[in-house]
Amino acid sequence: MEPLILHEDPRSGNCYKIRLTAALLGLPLERREYDIMEGETRTPDFLANVNPNGRIPVLQVGDRFLPESNAACWYLAEESPLIPQDRFTRANALRWMFFEQYNHEPNIATLRFWLLFVGEANLSDQQRGQIAAKRIAGEGALALMDEHLEQQPWFAGDRPSVADVALFAYTHVCEAGGFRLQDHPHVRAWLDRVSGLPGFVPMK
Amino acid sequence: MEPLILHEDPRSGNCYKIRLTAALLGLPLERREYDIMEGETRTPDFLANVNPNGRIPVLQVGDRFLPESNAACWYLAEESPLIPQDRFTRANALRWMFFEQYNHEPNIATLRFWLLFVGEANLSDQQRGQIAAKRIAGEGALALMDEHLEQQPWFAGDRPSVADVALFAYTHVCEAGGFRLQDHPHVRAWLDRVSGLPGFVPMK
Repeated sequence: MEPLILHEDPRSGNCYKIRLTAALLGLPLERREYDIMEGETRTPDFLANVNPNGRIPVLQVGDRFLPESNAACWYLAEESPLIPQDRFTRANALRWMFFEQYNHEPNIATLRFWLLFVGEANLSDQQRGQIAAKRIAGEGALALMDEHLEQQPWFAGDRPSVADVALFAYTHVCEAGGFRLQDHPHVRAWLDRVSGLPGFVPMK
Repeated sequence: MEPLILHEDPRSGNCYKIRLTAALLGLPLERREYDIMEGETRTPDFLANVNPNGRIPVLQVGDRFLPESNAACWYLAEESPLIPQDRFTRANALRWMFFEQYNHEPNIATLRFWLLFVGEANLSDQQRGQIAAKRIAGEGALALMDEHLEQQPWFAGDRPSVADVALFAYTHVCEAGGFRLQDHPHVRAWLDRVSGLPGFVPMK
């Protein structure tokens, strides 16, 4: 495989997903850090050469750039046991990864970002007005995960996949966004299973 | 392939993506309609048997159920020319599909839904307070697409892929959400290319 460089902010769960995927697969990954709070992913150079969308993470593969955390995890995991072999199960892994980006991340990661990094006092009125709805939607996402994990140990198929990695990233730090893991015992047990996988690395 | 049933609301672009993918591939698809405005995807029966997330579309494959529109498109398109053969290009198709669900759909599809189906007069204050931000974010998504399409005819690789199908669905009806296609000439030309593909079916 060509040299891999992760353009990232280490505080971001979306970046951590890619580090965790690489670690579980034993792939070496060079890291370039940016401070999103300082606008380092909005510079003309970053927009022209790394990601026109102005966001991290971006996985650099040789001289090509791949934005979107879950696409980068998928790229790294192809042809490994982290991508299910069965066609339906493989699509089901993607189903949970799209769920993660649509129902989970915009609520759970955003509240963590607002409360932990921006600070509640610094939020705009428009952001503050969205807290209650994001709390409810994030709780709904965790409840849906808990319901699934009551019946099955992993999200897609009978072994860990990239879907588990994608959902682990912001779930294991959800309490920084004001969510309570103690309400979701099956999620807690699954977090323990993920963090016990061979090659696991913590976020920090 | 096992019998395919699409659980859908025909007004939803997310459902149309799956119909369009199936049509381009010549796959027969039975359709079951639900009215989301009447809560037909929140009934106990739907939650227990079709999708615990209470959302459509869901692709039923035999007796298994696959929620998330882009995962369903991927499932149908596997082993067809709509999934790029090259590993990086394949991940790049997913990159644009995650972009679609994160940057595009929550802004462009949501404004269309609010303005066309709910009606501006019926929006909550909280929804009304989000219109300006969603307008800016949706414009940003269209501008990013236009920039990409100025350089390349398709989103991932040198031929149409599931990424084009996913992005076509809500882009071609974005004006119902108050967006202006005339500001994005490369997007307009790409919409024409997609609707000229063999097997193309319109949304209605």
